[in-house]
Amino acid sequence: EPPMTNTLTNRRVILSSRPKGVPQPEHFTVEDVAVPDLADGQFLLKMHYWSIDPAMRGWANELPNYLPPVAIGAAMRAFTVGEIIESRHDDYQVGEVVTGKFGWNSYAISDGSDVDRKVGETDLPTSLSVGVLGLNGITAYLGLLDVCEPQPGDTVIVSTAAGAVGSAVGQIARIKDARTIGITSSPEKMALCKDQFGYDEVISYREDGLAGAIKAAAPNGVNCYFDNTCGEISDAVFTNLSLGARICICGTASLTDWDPIPVGPRVHRQLLVARARLQGFLVLDHQARFGEAVAQLADWVRSGELTYQEHVLEGVEAAPGAIDLLYRGGNRGKLLVGLG
Amino acid sequence: EPPMTNTLTNRRVILSSRPKGVPQPEHFTVEDVAVPDLADGQFLLKMHYWSIDPAMRGWANELPNYLPPVAIGAAMRAFTVGEIIESRHDDYQVGEVVTGKFGWNSYAISDGSDVDRKVGETDLPTSLSVGVLGLNGITAYLGLLDVCEPQPGDTVIVSTAAGAVGSAVGQIARIKDARTIGITSSPEKMALCKDQFGYDEVISYREDGLAGAIKAAAPNGVNCYFDNTCGEISDAVFTNLSLGARICICGTASLTDWDPIPVGPRVHRQLLVARARLQGFLVLDHQARFGEAVAQLADWVRSGELTYQEHVLEGVEAAPGAIDLLYRGGNRGKLLVGLG
Repeated sequence: EPPMTNTLTNRRVILSSRPKGVPQPEHFTVEDVAVPDLADGQFLLKMHYWSIDPAMRGWANELPNYLPPVAIGAAMRAFTVGEIIESRHDDYQVGEVVTGKFGWNSYAISDGSDVDRKVGETDLPTSLSVGVLGLNGITAYLGLLDVCEPQPGDTVIVSTAAGAVGSAVGQIARIKDARTIGITSSPEKMALCKDQFGYDEVISYREDGLAGAIKAAAPNGVNCYFDNTCGEISDAVFTNLSLGARICICGTASLTDWDPIPVGPRVHRQLLVARARLQGFLVLDHQARFGEAVAQLADWVRSGELTYQEHVLEGVEAAPGAIDLLYRGGNRGKLLVGLG
Repeated sequence: EPPMTNTLTNRRVILSSRPKGVPQPEHFTVEDVAVPDLADGQFLLKMHYWSIDPAMRGWANELPNYLPPVAIGAAMRAFTVGEIIESRHDDYQVGEVVTGKFGWNSYAISDGSDVDRKVGETDLPTSLSVGVLGLNGITAYLGLLDVCEPQPGDTVIVSTAAGAVGSAVGQIARIKDARTIGITSSPEKMALCKDQFGYDEVISYREDGLAGAIKAAAPNGVNCYFDNTCGEISDAVFTNLSLGARICICGTASLTDWDPIPVGPRVHRQLLVARARLQGFLVLDHQARFGEAVAQLADWVRSGELTYQEHVLEGVEAAPGAIDLLYRGGNRGKLLVGLG
């Protein structure tokens, strides 16, 4: 069959200079490149969504991280989902939908080695595969259940409670019969936490006396803390730990620069007095359990026990400002770039 | 039988004013009080040793702790060992040796409820029951094995490496086939760590570039860190964590004042990047396993695999300065007050 791909243009967004801290629009450049022909064993993806995640700050910076920094001149690394539109690979058929870190490319060629998974939940929206049924939901599921280990009746507190990961954490904790406290920012997000995500208590981190507000909401102390922020929110939670508390460090989004390491209250004495556990969690360490997590999350979505919010920025040109939007908290739900 | 006790005088050391930070001699008063007669169900102890431990700073202060503060006017709380010299209790016989928190009293009356254990290792020195066969050794054994979980070939680093707990941690880690690095202060203690306690590498925390010295001693990173200090020593270790590192917070001795909470580098990002675990450990939570720990420790002492150093201050009058001596690092081995 004749190659189709040489008539296609990949509109992509490259990292054109090295940010320090949160990447800004000026660190990226939109460019068009020809899509090469497929070789045997390859297939072509038309990307549907680029996921915008806090981890992208770290990937764009030169700090130590769990992945090497994105090279200057390369397409920005991103979790993505796309549909196979041409295939010369026996295991991948036209029409199948796959996820992977295909980056900020509108078309991508793969040999399958960089596919995270084929999306089997064809009854649910494709975008969920990079959200509540993707690493966001899996992170919430495994981080909460494995590191925080919530027990029925426990008090579970979640920072970025309205976010893509946090909103799933709060809902899964509730499904597990814990009492849930969400920390978020605006009145709009507070209402979302209460009305849609079902938190028992919602606190704004913008209020004075955050530690006191947490104490009032958690009079017996915090058993589990799922932390996406670090910084002052964490400091306030740490003054309210119950005996044997379990804290999952999933992200450190409130502190935008880790070079040099910012200072804050030393947590050691609080952890010692509470015999508490503070543990870093990276979902990519637990790939063997992704299937279990996605199956359970999808069932909860179908039953209505687990809901989600999406915020889709339309078009490639929206990508350069998206990470900054996320760090400023300007999104309303899971942030995505939609490619139409 | 006629009461004997009313002829005896209990020379004790009371907490006479509230310290902030490390208790100094002026916070204590030595006084003599009559030993009351025994009631039925009681026995009288002649104390042999008072153990001097870092935890005593916290007990004397008004900070939150795992025990209420020592009351002004009460004998200072301490772990102690003594011999029964009179008994009106069926389960406790004259000549038996028991440990418990009988405080800075030279004689103590007990009904058994405050006994930690009867000392059965009559072949070993009595003083060991408040040292390497007491909470120091048990802390090392359970904290290292349960929280740090050293594996053969792991690199284990210990702060206060020559101390009562640290020296046991280093030796138990070596028994478990780990590579051990000790952090201590003076050339004398460094020699002790190398020659007696068998650390593979010994580092002085007084040297410039502690983080670099740790990196040189642990080129593959630190798998396990048993921390008795917090502060700058911890900060240096935290820049050298290996993937999946386990850190036991046993004490925070290098920071003498936790009110207000001192600031330091935030550890969250380092824990996240290393997917490491930082956990507070209090040995008193694990009393059900003390018997197992003491039996194993005693066997290692008998075989010569586990050695110890003691520093005995003679007489009641030495007690008021003992906690400060410990915090200044002036002791050479497990610090005790001996009552002759």
